[in-house]
Amino acid sequence: MAADAAPAQVWAPGIPEVGESLDLEDDEARYVSRVCRARPGERLRVTDGRGGVAELILTSTGRRVRGEVASRTRSERTRTLTLACGAPEGERGDWLVEKLAELGIARWQPIDCERSAWREGATRSERWVRLARAALRQSLQAWEMEIAAPIRLEAFVRNDQVVGRRWFADPDGDSGREGAGPEIIVVGPAAGLSDGEKALLGGAGFEAISLGPSRLRTETAALCAAALGHLR
Amino acid sequence: MAADAAPAQVWAPGIPEVGESLDLEDDEARYVSRVCRARPGERLRVTDGRGGVAELILTSTGRRVRGEVASRTRSERTRTLTLACGAPEGERGDWLVEKLAELGIARWQPIDCERSAWREGATRSERWVRLARAALRQSLQAWEMEIAAPIRLEAFVRNDQVVGRRWFADPDGDSGREGAGPEIIVVGPAAGLSDGEKALLGGAGFEAISLGPSRLRTETAALCAAALGHLR
Repeated sequence: MAADAAPAQVWAPGIPEVGESLDLEDDEARYVSRVCRARPGERLRVTDGRGGVAELILTSTGRRVRGEVASRTRSERTRTLTLACGAPEGERGDWLVEKLAELGIARWQPIDCERSAWREGATRSERWVRLARAALRQSLQAWEMEIAAPIRLEAFVRNDQVVGRRWFADPDGDSGREGAGPEIIVVGPAAGLSDGEKALLGGAGFEAISLGPSRLRTETAALCAAALGHLR
Repeated sequence: MAADAAPAQVWAPGIPEVGESLDLEDDEARYVSRVCRARPGERLRVTDGRGGVAELILTSTGRRVRGEVASRTRSERTRTLTLACGAPEGERGDWLVEKLAELGIARWQPIDCERSAWREGATRSERWVRLARAALRQSLQAWEMEIAAPIRLEAFVRNDQVVGRRWFADPDGDSGREGAGPEIIVVGPAAGLSDGEKALLGGAGFEAISLGPSRLRTETAALCAAALGHLR
């Protein structure tokens, strides 16, 4: 590892007690050995993506990577933003998920709207989890982004979890954005939200908020909303 | 075109007088006929990407697209942000250029740094111009993003054009971001800015600014900085 770099971070499903050993999963082992080129004796940060963070001293590297837990801490969840998003054009969903995870969104909620739905994809959720974990490594966060299954907008809005300040991105909305940041932001699909959907959101307490002067693609609006949350 | 959609916008190298005819370039004609499925008699917005905007009434569509200029206006440049950016990993530069153009950055300046330089690519600048024009259509802006040739960081910093408030993204920087937004933001390459480069920037009046709590990839930091400019 470069001498001036921050220690690398990897993900593990769980973190053992101090003094115990931990074997890394394949993806993480590959990252440690091939990308970081770490050697036995070096230190590594491990997180379970649910606030648990440990310092690991590597005992073996190569195809299998093992280390001993030197210390353990817990980190409180500070981010709480849910981003509920309609389908963008083409395959833009994948890199959107990567960027949102990096920016520290708490929950990613794909929503199916009147004008377009997320395409079925059995491998997609697995791929998204992998992308989100890679972003967790990269960004040195202790909480991984939760990835929800796609849901119809109407069902999402009726859900009990829809509480706190909530916005939906609307080119004709308010550009004030004063006060506390939102807990939930809804971004429409490539073809936009219908008038009926905007009325539904308005009725459920979502404020129409403009994300700036130019018309943005779905994935750009979602990133802009996430940056807004990240920079607060 | 969908009845509730904003009129489509295309780019043209110049805009003739009111009452005169305009033939669209191939890329733009394809967009109007195939994507918007526009028909003669429909209205279209045209910009030269330098503040000139016209309303065009289509007289013929298909492979060649022609229209008559119904009205002409000029729009002042409101965005002035220059984003100077080191090379990200892999091919992430292309979509970064697309997103920055959509968010309304005035000038894109690739910078070559101590730890990494932009790879040579004869077709890259052409491709970037095409991506920026597609973003101009999409986002309904009247000013296109200027695309500069890569330059060494030292040379960029010494340039006469480097005036106004200026920031560089630094995980250890100030997170205040109070007052007027910057005119220039520098984002380091994937391997980061060296201490020498940070000192050089500091000496040239660039403030070290943190873009939030998690460590961001080059392209994510650049997007975050652009969103910051877009949301002001």
